Amino acid sequence: MSDKGYFITLEGCEGSGKSTQLKKLEAFLKESGRDFIFTREPGGTPIAEQIRGIILDGKNVEMADETEALLYSAARVQHVKEKILPAKNSGKIVVCDRYIDSSFAYQAYARGLGMDFVKGVNIYAVQNCMPDLTVLLDISPEDAFIRKGGADKDDRLEQSGLEFHKKVYAGYKQLARDNPHRIAVVDAKKGADEVFEDILQILKERQIIG
Amino acid sequence: MSDKGYFITLEGCEGSGKSTQLKKLEAFLKESGRDFIFTREPGGTPIAEQIRGIILDGKNVEMADETEALLYSAARVQHVKEKILPAKNSGKIVVCDRYIDSSFAYQAYARGLGMDFVKGVNIYAVQNCMPDLTVLLDISPEDAFIRKGGADKDDRLEQSGLEFHKKVYAGYKQLARDNPHRIAVVDAKKGADEVFEDILQILKERQIIG
Repeated sequence: MSDKGYFITLEGCEGSGKSTQLKKLEAFLKESGRDFIFTREPGGTPIAEQIRGIILDGKNVEMADETEALLYSAARVQHVKEKILPAKNSGKIVVCDRYIDSSFAYQAYARGLGMDFVKGVNIYAVQNCMPDLTVLLDISPEDAFIRKGGADKDDRLEQSGLEFHKKVYAGYKQLARDNPHRIAVVDAKKGADEVFEDILQILKERQIIG
Repeated sequence: MSDKGYFITLEGCEGSGKSTQLKKLEAFLKESGRDFIFTREPGGTPIAEQIRGIILDGKNVEMADETEALLYSAARVQHVKEKILPAKNSGKIVVCDRYIDSSFAYQAYARGLGMDFVKGVNIYAVQNCMPDLTVLLDISPEDAFIRKGGADKDDRLEQSGLEFHKKVYAGYKQLARDNPHRIAVVDAKKGADEVFEDILQILKERQIIG
């Protein structure tokens, strides 16, 4: 069991079971005695949560795609500097619900801004703070929506519909192909306990847990 | 008198008399019958005003300089796409209280982020929408503070103190040297009526007004 800091992100489409897996991981890490923090994007600090509020406000229908991408980047740099890097540098495991791959999948691929744009505005956000490991919960948006019980109408992102989420999913699959060492793909169509066993297996293989 | 759209920005340190000159210019343009809009940064649209609220909130003392720069850029791209470009393209004179030179002066020079960073995160914001003319109201922060009657303690930017504003001022002067065709420097230590006469003279020379 390593005692150096480690930065893990969880990614996946809406309804992929991230929340369930995060709860299981939190319970597991508590039991293990390992020092860790859980955080999320967009948000994670008071200022980043204010930015999150603007991004996710269903009333902000006029938001340009570029504005959205820059807001995610602004929230991210605040999160990185104020919370993620200090925790990682002090030896903690940092688990983050969504991070830069969400920007790539949602903004670059699904909104069509392209990887150059999104990389460009994120160079300044990630500050040499790329995840050591990203777990991608792999489930198609069709299956995920069914499991979630339909969309939440108050969330601006959820209003985008199935076609959008299919592009997000395709983006994630491409990212996994392009980053095979960083991104571990877990079959999220399985039951929650089986999925969690697969996640633990990955953490063990990488010697993040004993 | 031209009838094509024209994009004019006003810049200067706090207390440089921008508000006074904007009022005079608005009254003049109303009289002239020219089609125009006045707007401001950060802000200018509902979403950009929400972003402005985060940037200027005196309670957000933890804000990283990079976060601030990205928030300005996010507000700017929304403003450009939703308001400035549509107005300019329909033939209006667009007058904007602060724009990209404020990011250069405040973030790049005064906060020390450097021009590369601020240019980098603004390439995506300005969208080929650089000002046709920028009027810089040139007054030192010492003189400006005296004229303003001291700092406003509730404004986060105002809390930065004289040393910061001296750097902003030096940044503006450098920008004026680097962009002599776009940026017209007006001596703002003069009385308000004299300053306004100088601004009108610049607009006449550029055939923006008859």
